[in-house]
Parts: sequence; C-alpha cells; structure tokens
Amino acid sequence: MSRPVLLILLLVLSPVAGRAQTNAPSDSSGIARLNDSLVAATRAMDNEATLRLWEDDGISLLPGMAPIMGRKSIGAFMYRVTGTLPGAHVERFDFACHNITVSGDWASEWCTEHQIIHFANGTPSFDGWGKLLFILHRSAGGSWRIRTEMWNQAMPESAGRE
Amino acid sequence: MSRPVLLILLLVLSPVAGRAQTNAPSDSSGIARLNDSLVAATRAMDNEATLRLWEDDGISLLPGMAPIMGRKSIGAFMYRVTGTLPGAHVERFDFACHNITVSGDWASEWCTEHQIIHFANGTPSFDGWGKLLFILHRSAGGSWRIRTEMWNQAMPESAGRE
Repeated sequence: MSRPVLLILLLVLSPVAGRAQTNAPSDSSGIARLNDSLVAATRAMDNEATLRLWEDDGISLLPGMAPIMGRKSIGAFMYRVTGTLPGAHVERFDFACHNITVSGDWASEWCTEHQIIHFANGTPSFDGWGKLLFILHRSAGGSWRIRTEMWNQAMPESAGRE
Repeated sequence: MSRPVLLILLLVLSPVAGRAQTNAPSDSSGIARLNDSLVAATRAMDNEATLRLWEDDGISLLPGMAPIMGRKSIGAFMYRVTGTLPGAHVERFDFACHNITVSGDWASEWCTEHQIIHFANGTPSFDGWGKLLFILHRSAGGSWRIRTEMWNQAMPESAGRE
C-alpha cells in the first residue's frame, strides 16, 4: 500500500482529536468518554488502548479493502500498519462528532477528523481530512464500545476544527 | 467531477440490487422491505422513489465531499448527478446487507454493492464495487427510513454477489 493509504488507515483505526467535541443529548456522556478515549489513544498511537475500545465482534469498513471482521483481525491490521511507520507521530488530530443518537444499548454518531502525521525520516508531514460513521454498543459493564466504523475522505472545509 | 466520481455518487444515493439479501433478525422484515425498495428505485434510476426512502433530516456522507444535510439537499444533489448522465441505465446492481441491528426505532446495517452502469453514448460501461453503512429510523407510520449513509470503495472480492 502507498504511504497515504497507510496513513489514512492508521487514522481510521485510531481516531484522535484536538479536543473531542460532541453534540450530546442527555444520556450520551458515556459516548463522549469513548470519543475522548479514542482521541487520547490515537494521539499516543497506542494500539492496545485503541483496541480496548472495540467490541470483540467489531467491524472496520475501510476504503478499497474487504471488511475487517473482529477485534483480533483489526488489531493485526493495526499493527501491520504502524509497523511500516517507525518514528511517526501524530502532530495534530482534530475530531468532532455529531448527531449522537442513543437507543437502548445501541448508538450512532458521525464524526469529522483532521490529522497531521509527522515522520522521523524527513518525509513531508501527511495532512489529511476524513469523515467517520460509527455504530456503538454499550457493554454489560456499561462502557460504550465500537461495533462498526466506516471512513471516507472529507473536504478540508467540512471537517472539524479546534 | 469526473464520470467515475459521479457514478459512484449516483450509486451511493440510490442503492440497488440483484436481490436484496439480509441477515435478518426476527423483527427486521421492515428493513428488508426498505432494502428491497432501495434496490427497485436504484434499478429504475427513480430519484423520487429513492428520496421517499430518506428521512427529512437525512445525512449522506460521500467521499471527498462535505456532508449533505437534509432530504431536500440530497435530492438536489441527486438530480444534479443524474442530469449529467442522460441515457444512462443500471445494467446490474447487486446489493447485500449484513448485521442488521434493531434497537427500538433505530437500526443499522452495512451493505456491499456491485454496480454496472450502461451509457447511451458509447462510453464503456462503468463497473464498480462499494460498501455502505446505514443508520435507519422507524417513522411514526412504522416504515423504516434512511437517516444516515456513508459509502466507500470495496474490493470486488468483498462485495455481495448473486
């Protein structure tokens, strides 16, 4: 895969943010916490922290790829991607979520993101924008987890800003 | 916009299918009907029929574009796209949906599609594959409608087949 594709995928699998912003109805504080955790894990490029936010049967729908089914497969993919980017770090990640809708133990939200990734080897930074749609599920313990995510490219002017 | 982009967008706004296939839990028959209606409307390239399947406050999340907010805007966009394709018709549309999850009046599903579009002017047919993620809402009248959709490109081997 080309570097931009890898970066996009990296981003998709580990959403981060300048500050997680939610248009939150009353009972969506748990979802705001999930978004904040996604932001923190992505900023830190912490794959294990990101994987803890996924359900066991999570599904990641990334452009130009077959669906990635299950947290185990998502994790394997995530480590393959980050393994190709030694020394990379997240310079900036703005992440804003909208239209959070909760019904019982299921919820959805769509988000916009803007990422700037810095490389150790002198390669120019990657500056990309994307949109995400999430299906979330509340676990038995009460925490919200990602069941399904899809990503596609955004126009710069449509993505969230700090 | 280039023709491939337009075709992709056309597809996204009017999902069709060889045969709508659902991995359906017991109470998802209404969602199967929505999927069948989407298939019929897309095959016919019937914008009005497609628009009737959207909620007033529907949101369409297409690649490389700002979110399209509201059925009125979605309709305007749809007519702009089809207006650039006189004489085009849907030669084939396979559409298969998975993991239908219903919670109260909200539901989600992800789908795969394979479209072949034929042009009147001798341009080679367009043959494309995509994935979709839908948030659905049950209206007061009991019918399911599209609240949010996102599309991205699929690998041919990962999309639904007849």
